[in-house]
Formats: sequence, C-alpha cells, structure tokens
Amino acid sequence: MAKELKNLTKRSENYSQWYNELVVKADLAEQSAVRGCMVIKPYGYAIWEKMQQTLDKMFKQTGVQNAYFPLLIPKSFLCREAEHVEGFAKECAVVTHYRLKNDPDGKGVVVDPDARLEEELIVRPTSETIIWGTYKNWIHSYRDLPIVCNQWANVMRWEMRTRMFLRTAEFLWQEGHTAHATSQEAEDRTVQMVNVYADFARKYMAMPVIVGVKSATERFAGAINTYTIEAMMQDGKALQSGTSHFLGQNFAKAFDVTFINKDNKPEHVWASSWGVSTRLMGALIMTHSDDNGLVLPPHLAPIQVVIIPIYKNDEQLAAISERIRPIMDQLASAGISVKYDDADNRRPGFKFADYELKGVPVRLAVGARDLENSTVELMRRDTLEKETLPLDGIAGHIENLLEEIQQKIYNKALDYREKMTTTADTYDEFKEKIEKGGFILAHWDGTPETEEKIKNETKATIRCIPLDGDETPGVCMVTGKPSARRVIFARAY
Amino acid sequence: MAKELKNLTKRSENYSQWYNELVVKADLAEQSAVRGCMVIKPYGYAIWEKMQQTLDKMFKQTGVQNAYFPLLIPKSFLCREAEHVEGFAKECAVVTHYRLKNDPDGKGVVVDPDARLEEELIVRPTSETIIWGTYKNWIHSYRDLPIVCNQWANVMRWEMRTRMFLRTAEFLWQEGHTAHATSQEAEDRTVQMVNVYADFARKYMAMPVIVGVKSATERFAGAINTYTIEAMMQDGKALQSGTSHFLGQNFAKAFDVTFINKDNKPEHVWASSWGVSTRLMGALIMTHSDDNGLVLPPHLAPIQVVIIPIYKNDEQLAAISERIRPIMDQLASAGISVKYDDADNRRPGFKFADYELKGVPVRLAVGARDLENSTVELMRRDTLEKETLPLDGIAGHIENLLEEIQQKIYNKALDYREKMTTTADTYDEFKEKIEKGGFILAHWDGTPETEEKIKNETKATIRCIPLDGDETPGVCMVTGKPSARRVIFARAY
Repeated sequence: MAKELKNLTKRSENYSQWYNELVVKADLAEQSAVRGCMVIKPYGYAIWEKMQQTLDKMFKQTGVQNAYFPLLIPKSFLCREAEHVEGFAKECAVVTHYRLKNDPDGKGVVVDPDARLEEELIVRPTSETIIWGTYKNWIHSYRDLPIVCNQWANVMRWEMRTRMFLRTAEFLWQEGHTAHATSQEAEDRTVQMVNVYADFARKYMAMPVIVGVKSATERFAGAINTYTIEAMMQDGKALQSGTSHFLGQNFAKAFDVTFINKDNKPEHVWASSWGVSTRLMGALIMTHSDDNGLVLPPHLAPIQVVIIPIYKNDEQLAAISERIRPIMDQLASAGISVKYDDADNRRPGFKFADYELKGVPVRLAVGARDLENSTVELMRRDTLEKETLPLDGIAGHIENLLEEIQQKIYNKALDYREKMTTTADTYDEFKEKIEKGGFILAHWDGTPETEEKIKNETKATIRCIPLDGDETPGVCMVTGKPSARRVIFARAY
Repeated sequence: MAKELKNLTKRSENYSQWYNELVVKADLAEQSAVRGCMVIKPYGYAIWEKMQQTLDKMFKQTGVQNAYFPLLIPKSFLCREAEHVEGFAKECAVVTHYRLKNDPDGKGVVVDPDARLEEELIVRPTSETIIWGTYKNWIHSYRDLPIVCNQWANVMRWEMRTRMFLRTAEFLWQEGHTAHATSQEAEDRTVQMVNVYADFARKYMAMPVIVGVKSATERFAGAINTYTIEAMMQDGKALQSGTSHFLGQNFAKAFDVTFINKDNKPEHVWASSWGVSTRLMGALIMTHSDDNGLVLPPHLAPIQVVIIPIYKNDEQLAAISERIRPIMDQLASAGISVKYDDADNRRPGFKFADYELKGVPVRLAVGARDLENSTVELMRRDTLEKETLPLDGIAGHIENLLEEIQQKIYNKALDYREKMTTTADTYDEFKEKIEKGGFILAHWDGTPETEEKIKNETKATIRCIPLDGDETPGVCMVTGKPSARRVIFARAY
C-alpha cells in the first residue's frame, strides 16, 4: 500500500495525469455515477470548509449577509436578459416533470407523462435572474439600498469535458449579488470583492494572482465589466480563479427593478455579482503540489501538524504519548490543528508516505531514542527537509515554522510565475514563446477579431488587462494598430 | 410603518395566519417565483447559520466528517431499494434534458429535443441511494469501517401543499450517512444522533422534545427503525423536528456493499442515516413567539442585545455613544453579539417595534436623562418587562440575563407541553380530548390497521413510542386488544 501511494505519475511525465491521480490518491474527490459530477471526499471537503469559513468571515467584514434563493429557475427568467440566456441556456439541466410512476410493464419507475410542468425549470447555472426577480420586491426607495447578499450554493452547467474541481457539471460556490443606488458604488463593490479574492488567494492559498479586467469576449454573460484573479499553474497554464462582475443596470432593467432616488425620481438599480467555486481546490493543488503528493499551505491545511510515535511495545508508546501530550496541548492552544497518529494497524513508513501524499505541512516522528535525548525528528512537507530538534520549545518552533512555510511556498510560486512571464513584441515571437507556457505581455489592438485570430492560431486567450500593469502604449503584435497597453495572454484551463 | 409592524394577526384569532405573517414580517423568508420554494432572507438565514454552526460542531465532537455527494441521482438508483422508491418517487423533480435552444418561432428558448438524457436524473429527495452507490467503492474490509459522513445540502420533494420552513419543495438540511461493521454499532449511532438532536433542541432552541421511536407506518422509507424528536407547538399540534434511521442492511443489500469481517467472511454493511432541516426554523418560531412577533432563544439569536440611543442632537448622540462604547466592548468580549442602532432615519419607537418583532432577547435604551443618572432602560423580549438599571455592571447583568431568558423560555414551553399532555383510556375520551390539541398518551394494539382507523377518524397520528415513557401494559382504546405500553398521539404538522 505504501508503494501504491508513491506510485504517482511525475509532473514532468504527464502533468494532467499527475493532477487526476493526485486528486484521487490524496482522497480529495472521485468521479460519481452521474456524468461530470464528483463526490467530494471528507479530506477534500475539509479543505473546502476551511476556504469557505475564511472567505465567509472576510465577506462579513465588508458587510455581506448570507441568504438563500431557489435551486430551480423558471425558464422564462433565464430569457429576460438577452446576453445572459445566450451564455447559459446552452448547457443546463432542465426539470420537465415532477413525478415518477410505476412502469406499466412492471420494470421499475418511469416519468409520469401526466406530471409535466407547465413551464420548465432550470437547475441554476448562476442566480442573477432568480435573485433580481426577488430584489424587485425588496427595493422601492434609496433607503432600501445597498443590498449586499451572498449565498453558498451548488450550481450546474452541463459541461461536455469535465475535470475534477476544475470543471464539473455540478460545483459548489458562493455567489454574491449586490444592489446599489449609483453606478460608482456598484463598481466600487465589484472592485472591492475582486480584491477580497486576491487577498484570500495570496494570504491563505499562498497563491500569487494578477488582478485585472477581462476583455469583452471573456466577460460574464450580461456584465458590463468582469474583474478576475488569474493564477499560474506549475505547467505554465493560467487558471481563472475568481471573478467579480459590474452588471450596470442590465438585470435591473430585465426585471424592472427601480428605486425612488434622493431626487424623488425612479431609477434602475445598479448591480454587481461575484463568485469563487470549488475550482479553487484545483488551483490550490496545482500551485504547490509535487511528485510526492499534495503540498498544502498551513493556513488551509485541515491537519497542520501530525505526530507519529515510533514504538516497539505498549510501554514505549505510553512513554511517548505522555511526553507528547503537553506539546499537543501547547499547539492546540496556539490554534494549531494537530493529529497524533498512534494507530497500530499501519506502520510508520506507511503513515509517513500517506501524510506526505496528503500534504500535511509539518510531521514529527518520536521514537524511544528521541525520548532519551529529549529530541524529535521534524520534517517539513514543502522542502521534505528533516532535522532533529530538542523537544523543549518545539511548539513555539512549529508555530513560527508554519508561517515560514506559508510564506515560502507563496514566494516559490511567485518566483515561478515571474520566471514564466515574458513579453513579446512580434506575433512570431509570441507564437514561439507561447509553446513554452507562461504569461506573455503583448500589445493588442483591442478588437474581438484579433483576439479570436490569436486564440484560433495559438490557443492563447487574453487572461486580463492587469489593473496595476505597465500602461505604456504600443502597437498590436498582429495588426500593427495602436494598442493602449500590454495585456496578459496565456493558454488557460 | 411602525403600525404595520404591529399589525400581526393574534395567535388566538388564527394561529396559522399568525405564523405565515410572522415569517414574512420578521424578514425570515418569503415565497419565491418557483412554486413551493422559498427565499430565505438574511435575517432568517442568520438564525439558520447559527443552528448549522452549532450542530456541525456537535456532530464533529462525535467523529462526524463532512463530505459532498451529487445533487442528481440516476433514476435507476432510486429503484434499487423497493420501499425507498415507493416513498420518494411520487414527489420528485425530474431532469430529462440538458440543453435549451432558441425557439424556432423566435420566442425565447425551448427544450432541445435532441438533448434528451438517456436516463432521467432525479433532484435528490434524500441521498441514501447515491451515497450507498458511492460507499461500495470505499468499503472492502472491516478496517474501512465505520464511515461517519454528513453533508449539508439542499433537497427537493414535490410537496403539493407547502408552508414556509415547515414543508417546502426545496429545503436545506443535513443528512448523515454512516456505515458500520455490526448491527449494534449502527443502531448505537442511530440513537446517539437522535440524542444529539434532542440536546440541540433543548439547549439551543430552548425547545423541549420527546425522544421516541416511530410506528412502522411512520417510518422512513427503507428503514428498519426510525427515531424521532417530537415537539409541541403553541397550538397543541406536534412537530416532528428531526429523525434518525436505523437502516439495517437494506441499502447495503440494494447496492451490494459488503466488507470482509474479522473472521475473513464477506458480510453486508450496517447503516444509519439522520437529518434535520430548515423545518427547525418553523419549530423555533412556533415554540416561543407571541403576538408581538418573534421570541428568539439567546443561544440562537443573531443579535442578542440591541442598544438604541435616544437623542435630540448630535452632541447628545456623541455623549451616549461614548458612554456606551466600553459596554459594547465588554459584551463583545464575553462573546455576546450586540448591535448599536444609531441610524437617524428611523425613530426610536419604530426601532423598538422592529426589534420586538425580530425577537432580539434584550433591548437597551439610553437617553440624555439616563446619562445624567448613569442608568439605562432594559427590556427583555420574553416577558416584555422593562426596568431601569445602573450602567455600572450592566454587561455582567446582561450576560446572566441572557442565560436566564434561555432557561425561562424553555421552562415555559415545557410547562405548556406538560399542561397539554393527557391520557385517554377510551376511544370516546380520546376523541373528545384530541379536539383540544396536545399530546395524548393512549394504549394501542400495535397494528397499522388501528393506527389508520384512528388517523382517518380523528386526524391524530402516533407521534412516537417514547424511549423513557411509562411501560405499563394495558388494552388498546379502540380494539381492546393487549397493548405493551402507551404511545403518544397528536395532530401534527
């Protein structure tokens, strides 16, 4: 079994296979019996829960309130906003009936044709329509604004090619939907939330991200402007990790949501929406993990420290346990989640491999000799470096080490991204460089046609126009037309 | 508007209407555009979140791990367990297609007939089938057991008559699904979890419950035994508030889930499942609230203390705010959630009525005179009693008061239940007493036929056979046949 754990495809051999295997072997998730839908297993879910709890707290600090809106959306709602229906109707699960009945032929159950719905219901692919249908009842005056709601929910998009966490038919996410009295306030909230996402990615996921604006082609269906955080995976591909949309008055107009403004005049409401999903799990895995398995940032690891006693008999185990107990208490009181694995049905070697695979940031091993010497063997998962340390003061050492690891893996990912970020001034140079992966900063004439041509010819898309990038103008690498500034191109997940 | 807030139907006039109005007026939930589905508004959701967080912590203390399983269940899965499909196929949302397309007549979108699923998918009414289909891959040996998973999820049952929180087509819940090597261990877990529910109801919801076993007729479809917590609402009707099912090997057999036991022999796995839902919100509302609005138990109130300054000018407000700030800090550091409502667009009288309606347990009002005297006016929501207290030591006083209120509303509900619990020895006596509501302890011959007759003639059902009730045998009030013990009858939600 320990051998099987080690049997992970190397990233350099087949990055995609490495990812798929790791998701399964580290017990994060597995394919379900339903096409394109995954089961999130307890260990994977524990990481997602930490993400959720952290984000939820960050949201609430900005005044967000949670609520819950229906799973099913009347078909006619989806059609109210013209671009939105184009974007989402092509890939959705449709509920047409509300009852099964016994098969007249006696084989199981069949759909009862008498229980056909008058209007079909769509399993929500996103909730702008049902929420703006609801906000109509909540908003009358400027005094009712702003509304800053979020929901944690499941959504479905009938994707043809799915990959666990990265693109699944059903996924878990949060979607915030806000309503404002002014355009400025709505756009400010849009930017505020993309910055919350960036903070979360950097501080908790230890994942560097670039904050930017999407090109018109890549915008959310129904948005005026889409802000994004873009991360770079270890294969040099980009992963869009969170988006925040300035919706203008589009949904307010589609659902006729007006308010009486301070000048006593009716006006359509201004809106934003923003979301991150279980896709972040894929981002987390692909940013840090290595050929030995997961590498989890301490701030999101469900188990931050594992302690493994190495013993020959019950007496030795009892002596180790007694010595370890106060250390466990110290760690716990510092808010560090620690697991003491004294299970006797798995050998230490198996446990080492398993916790390595699962990405536990710090591992302690304590044997009889260690007790004599009052030492402990510590391994850090990120570098796999081992050292023998005095037991005295070990809790404080670990507390610092966890922060050091958190910072170090962030820096490592940032170094990689910087190394893999280049510029291209001609289309030929671009075509050559894009084959090596990474982000390419290049000039573009701002038209969807040029963007489309580049995508068709190189599979690279505009990831974003970075908010704090270089704003020097130039000429488009393809058409030679004027370009306001360089934008980021990459091949993406 | 303050008048409108007060305009709540009295419980004595029309209990059902009082409930429906209160849910809406207290901003807990509202009907959505989708038949039978509700929108849970931020204030209602904040209460549900507190329930969730508390239960989740209680679950984890017993070793429960969270996970997530697919929303959609293949139709054939539902059919594997014969009783289960009977119980759930009659009322389910069926996904038959995975795409919409533009209407050839140019009017919106229509279901694309080319995108019909080979096998229909059911929106989960409960997840035993998909989960046992998954557990088959997780369980091989006794070493893989027990599995103690829970998921927080949305489910759908196509109810014909719906009421917000009590019975909705979509609802939020948790469902635990456990797998064990022995029958005893599975049944122990079943009982453990119904006791967790009872603890939660009593300590947090301040709601007395009776723990018991369901009669065969009222059992979960596919269970060997269903345990329940039954509460009594203020109209004397029973509300089933949580159930825990011993499933025996039924689902393991249906999905062919076996394990190699310690004797090296294959055996079917033993199971339990257990759930509580947003129905608890209905239970909470109906247990404590009064003609002035919600009464929330302090342990679940999103706002435990509201402080309202009463001021004529900015100078007065500043003086009050300054005096109140340290009290706010003291309350916050004691873990009490406190809101200081100094909004100037609503008058104090409106605020008083609004927080009364919303059930905030303790309200403080502070005016200029209070500042002079170093006093504060405190009102407790449960009794509506007001008193003037010294500002010195108010935080400590409130801390104790919140516990006192929690206990007092529990006792009040318990007294009511005891007053409304009687015995009946003859069917005539039973028929007379059931008209007055409440729980009736009566002898029953143990047959579904007698149970059915009683239900048809009196609308009363057997709520449960209480676990710690009187076990004196007798004769059935209807048939005169032997009865092992009295059971609890009531009309129920």
